[in-house]
Amino acid sequence: MEQITVLGAGSWGTALAIVLADNGHHVKLWGHRPEAIEELNRTRRNEKYLPGIELPSNITGYSNLRESLEEVQTIVLAVPTKAIRDVLKDISSMLEKEMTIVHVSKGIEPNTLMRISEIIEEEMPSHLLKDVVVLSGPSHAEEVSRRHITTVTSSSKNMEAAEYIQDLFMNQHFRVYTNPDVIGVEIGGALKNIIALAAGITDGLGYGDNAKAALITRGLAEIARLGSKMGGNPLTFSGLTGIGDLIVTCTSVHSRNWRAGHLLGKGQNLDEVLDNMGMVVEGVRTTKAAYQLAKKYNVMMPITEALYEVLFNGQSPKVAVDSLMARVKTHEMEDLVNIMENR
Amino acid sequence: MEQITVLGAGSWGTALAIVLADNGHHVKLWGHRPEAIEELNRTRRNEKYLPGIELPSNITGYSNLRESLEEVQTIVLAVPTKAIRDVLKDISSMLEKEMTIVHVSKGIEPNTLMRISEIIEEEMPSHLLKDVVVLSGPSHAEEVSRRHITTVTSSSKNMEAAEYIQDLFMNQHFRVYTNPDVIGVEIGGALKNIIALAAGITDGLGYGDNAKAALITRGLAEIARLGSKMGGNPLTFSGLTGIGDLIVTCTSVHSRNWRAGHLLGKGQNLDEVLDNMGMVVEGVRTTKAAYQLAKKYNVMMPITEALYEVLFNGQSPKVAVDSLMARVKTHEMEDLVNIMENR
Repeated sequence: MEQITVLGAGSWGTALAIVLADNGHHVKLWGHRPEAIEELNRTRRNEKYLPGIELPSNITGYSNLRESLEEVQTIVLAVPTKAIRDVLKDISSMLEKEMTIVHVSKGIEPNTLMRISEIIEEEMPSHLLKDVVVLSGPSHAEEVSRRHITTVTSSSKNMEAAEYIQDLFMNQHFRVYTNPDVIGVEIGGALKNIIALAAGITDGLGYGDNAKAALITRGLAEIARLGSKMGGNPLTFSGLTGIGDLIVTCTSVHSRNWRAGHLLGKGQNLDEVLDNMGMVVEGVRTTKAAYQLAKKYNVMMPITEALYEVLFNGQSPKVAVDSLMARVKTHEMEDLVNIMENR
Repeated sequence: MEQITVLGAGSWGTALAIVLADNGHHVKLWGHRPEAIEELNRTRRNEKYLPGIELPSNITGYSNLRESLEEVQTIVLAVPTKAIRDVLKDISSMLEKEMTIVHVSKGIEPNTLMRISEIIEEEMPSHLLKDVVVLSGPSHAEEVSRRHITTVTSSSKNMEAAEYIQDLFMNQHFRVYTNPDVIGVEIGGALKNIIALAAGITDGLGYGDNAKAALITRGLAEIARLGSKMGGNPLTFSGLTGIGDLIVTCTSVHSRNWRAGHLLGKGQNLDEVLDNMGMVVEGVRTTKAAYQLAKKYNVMMPITEALYEVLFNGQSPKVAVDSLMARVKTHEMEDLVNIMENR
């Protein structure tokens, strides 16, 4: 049994802490708000993010970052992508020996256009960084915390590290596969939030399941097109971190990106939506980054571009969706063949 | 504007008749129950299958098959797969000149293991058969009849025929793409009903969205594995007739295969379920056919096999699903790489 630190006491960090605790590990769960951590330790619940779920006794909350890092060699990084650089700077100044960092966030940084594992490699001094592993897949935190069956992928440049993380997390309910394609896993995980926002908009506008299925299918093609041009394996986008994650995010009531899109489709503007959500909506930043990536790699991403216009240029959602659906393309294989040829 | 006959006045045949009528064509809609057709012509509705939808005036119901075939050169075949051979025999005895047959049914015939287009080619004398086209995609009839945006694929060995059918059906709401891969389109359309049954079972058992997303992802891999071994293009399974149709069938309340699975998951046996549904559940026959195809082509199809045991050998749904989820496989790409290598 190991000591493991989970940084970030939101719904996903807490759910993963539960998985690790169920497997017998001692988990230090760090959050930046002392009063929330105090309440967590006292009530044995994280009521704001996982209502009704009792935390196993081998999870301990910490609001002191330095204390949360003592005597561990594995850190699970579960903070919003916007906070990652700051947290990495802080822990780098505190660590004394090398760590395996498992990141579970989904996003691309606007402007730098870096994936999370690249940000980690940039921010952490190499003598403190043993391996970077990404854990991703179709996994709503609420269901994981209730021990519903869930499958995810562990991916790293170093397959031994991916397998080590697989072993830490794998149990009867939480099934972990490995995949060596870090780029494909990170791009699929990040970009599905864009399609979830768009799917929410079509639902909010009152379009039906037929239109949503078409959007998800075209969305997957668009993700695969960019991801394979960036060096990902096209097959990864047909797996758990591609189509699997896309399905769960676009069709589940739990998905915040879908919910944000739904409010946009109902007529709210972006500021109102973000105020109403009260949680981080990763897809908004990711849309900006993917829009920039599409230009950089010269890849057609019509859904991303349409959403960018809605989010940042005040385009009407209905006009954007209708023009998407009316795009002239008569031969559906053109796109898909391009994906393979771009490998 | 053309005269077109639609054979089959169920929900899908009627919805497609509406699309054709919206495009200005004269549509003869044939159904085998005279009283239902008489009511359709009198009330201008097909209340049993598409409640609340008014039929355009250029649709005329026929219960006399011979009359419905007069002066047409295109027939849309929208009868259940079980009835197709009988209908084809009947029309072959009545026709005098060659026809383009568009089929819109989704299934594989058990025992012969034939796709619908193969059945058509076997049953129709070649001098009466100009071309066979399959029209398939994520398309609930109810939504099509309400002019919600829908995308489908028109596929034929003869691309001119596929494009001719594309032109007949294409309009602002109903968008038709072409794809030359008839095998992939037919296999994807048929086999998604198996996964929809299985997804309904997991939902009926109370498993969550994470498990369902995993099942759909693995289901797509299983369909692609068989379909590409049978000669389909692996890319087709990433398109509208593959993942698109799979998503809509597995996640929509409109889907009868999902609903049948849901009742199975709730504890009803197959006979009770079929009695309760009162509609054809194509996935049941297709499961038998796919089970036989998996053996014939020596392809691993764990979801199909598990469902076969539930439907035909009295296996408990919970035991079947749990054993599916517990299958030992640690490297998710193995499967996907196999698909490509099997091409």
